[in-house]
Amino acid sequence: MSAKSPVLNVAMVGHAFMGRAHGNAFRQANHFFDLPLQVVPKVIVGRDLGRAAEAAGKLGFEHATTDLDAVLADPDIHLVDVATPNDSHHDIAMAALRAKKHVMCEKPLAMTLAQAKAMASLAKKQKVRVALWHNYRRAPATALAARMIQRGDIGAVRQVRAVYLQDWLADPKAGASWRTSKKHCGSGAHGDLNAHLIDLTRALTGLEFESVCGMQQTFTKTRPAGRGKKAKVDVDDAFCFLAKFKGGAIGTYEATRAAPGRKNYNCVEISGEKGTIRWNLERMNELEVFTDAGGKDGQGFRTVMCMDTPHPYAANWWPDGHIVGYEHTFVHHLADFVLSLGKGAIGKGTRFAPDFDDGVAVQAVLEAALRSAERGTWEKIAK
Amino acid sequence: MSAKSPVLNVAMVGHAFMGRAHGNAFRQANHFFDLPLQVVPKVIVGRDLGRAAEAAGKLGFEHATTDLDAVLADPDIHLVDVATPNDSHHDIAMAALRAKKHVMCEKPLAMTLAQAKAMASLAKKQKVRVALWHNYRRAPATALAARMIQRGDIGAVRQVRAVYLQDWLADPKAGASWRTSKKHCGSGAHGDLNAHLIDLTRALTGLEFESVCGMQQTFTKTRPAGRGKKAKVDVDDAFCFLAKFKGGAIGTYEATRAAPGRKNYNCVEISGEKGTIRWNLERMNELEVFTDAGGKDGQGFRTVMCMDTPHPYAANWWPDGHIVGYEHTFVHHLADFVLSLGKGAIGKGTRFAPDFDDGVAVQAVLEAALRSAERGTWEKIAK
Amino acid sequence: MSAKSPVLNVAMVGHAFMGRAHGNAFRQANHFFDLPLQVVPKVIVGRDLGRAAEAAGKLGFEHATTDLDAVLADPDIHLVDVATPNDSHHDIAMAALRAKKHVMCEKPLAMTLAQAKAMASLAKKQKVRVALWHNYRRAPATALAARMIQRGDIGAVRQVRAVYLQDWLADPKAGASWRTSKKHCGSGAHGDLNAHLIDLTRALTGLEFESVCGMQQTFTKTRPAGRGKKAKVDVDDAFCFLAKFKGGAIGTYEATRAAPGRKNYNCVEISGEKGTIRWNLERMNELEVFTDAGGKDGQGFRTVMCMDTPHPYAANWWPDGHIVGYEHTFVHHLADFVLSLGKGAIGKGTRFAPDFDDGVAVQAVLEAALRSAERGTWEKIAK
Amino acid sequence: MSAKSPVLNVAMVGHAFMGRAHGNAFRQANHFFDLPLQVVPKVIVGRDLGRAAEAAGKLGFEHATTDLDAVLADPDIHLVDVATPNDSHHDIAMAALRAKKHVMCEKPLAMTLAQAKAMASLAKKQKVRVALWHNYRRAPATALAARMIQRGDIGAVRQVRAVYLQDWLADPKAGASWRTSKKHCGSGAHGDLNAHLIDLTRALTGLEFESVCGMQQTFTKTRPAGRGKKAKVDVDDAFCFLAKFKGGAIGTYEATRAAPGRKNYNCVEISGEKGTIRWNLERMNELEVFTDAGGKDGQGFRTVMCMDTPHPYAANWWPDGHIVGYEHTFVHHLADFVLSLGKGAIGKGTRFAPDFDDGVAVQAVLEAALRSAERGTWEKIAK
Repeated sequence: MSAKSPVLNVAMVGHAFMGRAHGNAFRQANHFFDLPLQVVPKVIVGRDLGRAAEAAGKLGFEHATTDLDAVLADPDIHLVDVATPNDSHHDIAMAALRAKKHVMCEKPLAMTLAQAKAMASLAKKQKVRVALWHNYRRAPATALAARMIQRGDIGAVRQVRAVYLQDWLADPKAGASWRTSKKHCGSGAHGDLNAHLIDLTRALTGLEFESVCGMQQTFTKTRPAGRGKKAKVDVDDAFCFLAKFKGGAIGTYEATRAAPGRKNYNCVEISGEKGTIRWNLERMNELEVFTDAGGKDGQGFRTVMCMDTPHPYAANWWPDGHIVGYEHTFVHHLADFVLSLGKGAIGKGTRFAPDFDDGVAVQAVLEAALRSAERGTWEKIAK
Repeated sequence: MSAKSPVLNVAMVGHAFMGRAHGNAFRQANHFFDLPLQVVPKVIVGRDLGRAAEAAGKLGFEHATTDLDAVLADPDIHLVDVATPNDSHHDIAMAALRAKKHVMCEKPLAMTLAQAKAMASLAKKQKVRVALWHNYRRAPATALAARMIQRGDIGAVRQVRAVYLQDWLADPKAGASWRTSKKHCGSGAHGDLNAHLIDLTRALTGLEFESVCGMQQTFTKTRPAGRGKKAKVDVDDAFCFLAKFKGGAIGTYEATRAAPGRKNYNCVEISGEKGTIRWNLERMNELEVFTDAGGKDGQGFRTVMCMDTPHPYAANWWPDGHIVGYEHTFVHHLADFVLSLGKGAIGKGTRFAPDFDDGVAVQAVLEAALRSAERGTWEKIAK
Repeated sequence: MSAKSPVLNVAMVGHAFMGRAHGNAFRQANHFFDLPLQVVPKVIVGRDLGRAAEAAGKLGFEHATTDLDAVLADPDIHLVDVATPNDSHHDIAMAALRAKKHVMCEKPLAMTLAQAKAMASLAKKQKVRVALWHNYRRAPATALAARMIQRGDIGAVRQVRAVYLQDWLADPKAGASWRTSKKHCGSGAHGDLNAHLIDLTRALTGLEFESVCGMQQTFTKTRPAGRGKKAKVDVDDAFCFLAKFKGGAIGTYEATRAAPGRKNYNCVEISGEKGTIRWNLERMNELEVFTDAGGKDGQGFRTVMCMDTPHPYAANWWPDGHIVGYEHTFVHHLADFVLSLGKGAIGKGTRFAPDFDDGVAVQAVLEAALRSAERGTWEKIAK
Repeated sequence: MSAKSPVLNVAMVGHAFMGRAHGNAFRQANHFFDLPLQVVPKVIVGRDLGRAAEAAGKLGFEHATTDLDAVLADPDIHLVDVATPNDSHHDIAMAALRAKKHVMCEKPLAMTLAQAKAMASLAKKQKVRVALWHNYRRAPATALAARMIQRGDIGAVRQVRAVYLQDWLADPKAGASWRTSKKHCGSGAHGDLNAHLIDLTRALTGLEFESVCGMQQTFTKTRPAGRGKKAKVDVDDAFCFLAKFKGGAIGTYEATRAAPGRKNYNCVEISGEKGTIRWNLERMNELEVFTDAGGKDGQGFRTVMCMDTPHPYAANWWPDGHIVGYEHTFVHHLADFVLSLGKGAIGKGTRFAPDFDDGVAVQAVLEAALRSAERGTWEKIAK
């Protein structure tokens, strides 16, 4: 980036966990990637000015405000980042789109498929660029997996086995929160974790879901809600589903918050006709790959350390063999998004993925699976 | 075993792969376990006398015959071992039971649930002891897992994730055989591999299946059948199912023969309220265990090397840290069976498991899952 | 950090690989740690103004200069960071100390033990704070290991087995550089990699080296030097040594650049009377720990995922189970250094480690080992 | 083996741990390998007739005796197996050689290099076949490693890193025994465990040791000896040494009985110019292999499951992917020995390795290392 790069001024709405991760990306991307625009973390929009200002200081934004409308009306703001809780994604993003801002939205895109479709539709109409923060597509190892599958290293994909296991609700004494309330989050592990698995599947394999059959369970029906009270839990602790893809491939999925010892075990294994690839977020810099390389008596799963020069994003960081971490996936996501912005006119050839269409696709699968689990039937994915 | 131990004369019907594994157990058990009976590999029953005689020589049996009726009529034969292909298990075992022999039967118990029930029923009526060779219950690590779960190390079981992955049919050029023909084997990976997962689940957790929902796929529809011909494949290459257990636990299952790089990846992971246990046949002497042991900052999955003195069966073999292999599970199975024989009268208190009732239970789940996959519905397990 | 924090203005001398890592730390520390000072990346000092200015832009410094003297004379510069090649560490650091600046110096501290001692001595005399960038002490997992050992989790330390394996000089066709020339770097893998192992040993165990016996080898005696020329290699490709510690513990060390497949395999295993701890940079967020936790039949090496709330530095970053990478060790190092600066008067109780005394200790071991390898004798560590 | 195979009658002297492992091999080899001779476990020779007879019954030998001379005089005994404690290997083997028996001897071959040389010399003079039970050469994975190295998969060998870690003497309360007394066993971990590493190095790489430099330590100087008494420990708990090989390769070695959590961690890693191979007895069916297979972005250590058809010994056991255990290495050793016996006249072309010459080579390295540790010098290997 030359000193004369045009700027990309960012307004970030929200500043909790995801805001910290996004904020880091906005600060760091230009330091490690040669980008056509200089990203400027300009303003944080919050509901409480004091907390927003504190966040701005901590996260490196220039100032803070509670006035989203003013921000959207400001022609100097180029990009609106939606980092709020799930139930406000739709309204904020729609407002930003109406103001013709580029929009990056934290996942999930929306609370319903209808909302998601409206957002994707408006984004296209406004001819702005949009991104959905499915950051796990852009670990060096997952990007490498996508590359390998695309060039045919494992042949046509036949089976996906995907699990996202966490353990923070295994303990029945863990407290209730908005995350255990259907009204506030729609579903439990399903919307939170299966969303990642669905997006990763599509990103790595190019497969489209055809139909699904789901099963959910809530192991702990009530949880402490403070002051000796109990709150009912009406979302799933664990949600599993079977999937059939267009073209004949099949898959199994599991999301759970009740697997003791699994902190962040987002693990996807993909078998094709000629090989198998396996990735696990807890060892996110490694990729397990089996092909017939190594000869008849020397084949085996290869543990590929994905931080060497030939690997995606690796050369932007450190010399070979120095690993990166969780937040780097956000930096990569942003860097690629800014690169796509630099390509000028919005059109098919310069699509950034995942965008809101991808969000629609994920939402459709999530909803079909949820419906399936409630009805006890196989459900087709809505178009 | 003292020199004066009474003998247990064994007739083994069949002498292919499983016969080799059973035969080894018959030869080895008394050398490593103190048993109340001296096992004597007496006679192999085959269809071709020459081949049976050759097998008898190789496997250490005294002689060979083609006359099963004569063997069953011989009062000096105490135990009949059924090591033939699946479709003859029922007839041979029923004949042996009618002759009041103890019977050990290779899995699957039968081709249908009705057959299995008839076998279990006759076994009880005749008051003989019967065993089903689900050998994977008796790796040191799986026996340890069962012990840990039973004593509450991981709390009440909530989730099972079980896969049995192989790769010998991944290649479309791999040839057709009786194993790819529904007429000869009933199903593909499902009956062969899911049977193990179902039995292991019951053995390790004590859970009973309530309902299942299955999905199957055949990736390669025709296979080379010799001389340039092609044979249709009418069994599954891969079969996945969701399961609900009595009491609220849930599980996912997958059996496949099309996962490149997975040779014998029989892997069961069980999460309870307080911990998680994971076992994988390819590293069969290890058990991965998570509990809160190690303190707040020192918890983690423990790789337990299961060949030390405190572990099941370990002290019968070698000093600490010397591993055993596949065939040892058969030796353990036999040793426990002979110990149960030594306990005298047949009764509830001295049940050997897995017996034919366990075979009935496995068969009921397999059939329900198969029906489910054909109908696209959830199916209850038949009683 | 409140908005009114006093600032810590940083001048960084040098801006290559290590400069990028230091620069990142200077930019990031305040965003993730509550520090008593606001770190300000002020100026980069380089030999070429154009390149220094470009680096300043990329690394987030305010400006660049070639005039080190002017920087040292500037009372507004509080901290001088030495990120130049090894052979200039001494001169630059000494000048900065004379100017009464706090100094952070990239490892190795100096080219000779005598230099190192002079630096440590002057630092004490000037009553400034100094740090040596042995960053690997401050991975969450290594900091946890130090904590565990200090509180006695593995008992008295008896054995250290330490290797640092890389492979970038395995290929005889890899080119010559200053790193393969004794004149420019003193030694090969030894000074570069064993330095880390020596520092880590001291940091984790508190042990002091007593005597060492070394062995070195250069597998490729000449290397391509461009334009068809060959350059002689007069430093080691691999360097191993045995060590005896004060108090009776022993250790083995190996540094190599010729181990194909090992990119950055900095692995230290420490056995005490009651347990063993193992860490490996390639999986830097994990710690392998063996103690008797888990009970008689449930003991095993625990894979501790070190990015949960109870682990060092973890709570400053992301929710449980989200890993960090290589550069975070520099951020931690800086954050702790700034915390020590905030403690006011320089004194024994507020020492920051590793400082230049630690650098002296490492240098003494390196030199003794080198001397030993040349002479074929055991060598005592100089005091 | 046809029914008419000539027999190989075996007399086994000793019947403790190693006798059980040898005995199993004598019983099992013909059941799994097609051999030119039928091995017959004939007689066990012990010091106490009762215990020898009991062992004969348990281990499958025909009878027992205390009269070694009579056994040696018996022309019907073809092979004498020496499975006694170390200090009697020489005398028994020499007597058997004088009687012109084939001899298999448990390791170590002898108590001194002089003894070992005498044994090797007499073996050659008598033109009998001899074997030293260094069984770890014949795990499928180690045999595969030797094959790979021999055919050049990793290029010229440059570095060996070998450790054999156990933990049974980590606890200071573990009792004294003949194994902690120099008079009875010569050395501690060194002779017991480094012997394996030395033999494995030679077997896998073909390298010959040139000089060594050793270091030993006894962490627990006295141990409980029963009835409240303490016995002095005068052998090493841990013994490390550096090695230089003819031709320029180098290596590091460590044997210890004081590494908590390591039960039987016999781990050898070998780096050549083009690749690296790593084997670990605790996962003895796996081989870790790095070469450039997999392409620029897909290279990595391959975990080769060594029980598939193309792997050494695998096809003699079970279908692909079914692992074997510790005792199988003895069966393989014996099978290869019997095959060599079947080749007729004793000569260079039909040498079985490891034989007594290999035992001499191992002994020479062990003694040089011991001398080195005592003197604090590098020591050349005696010829």
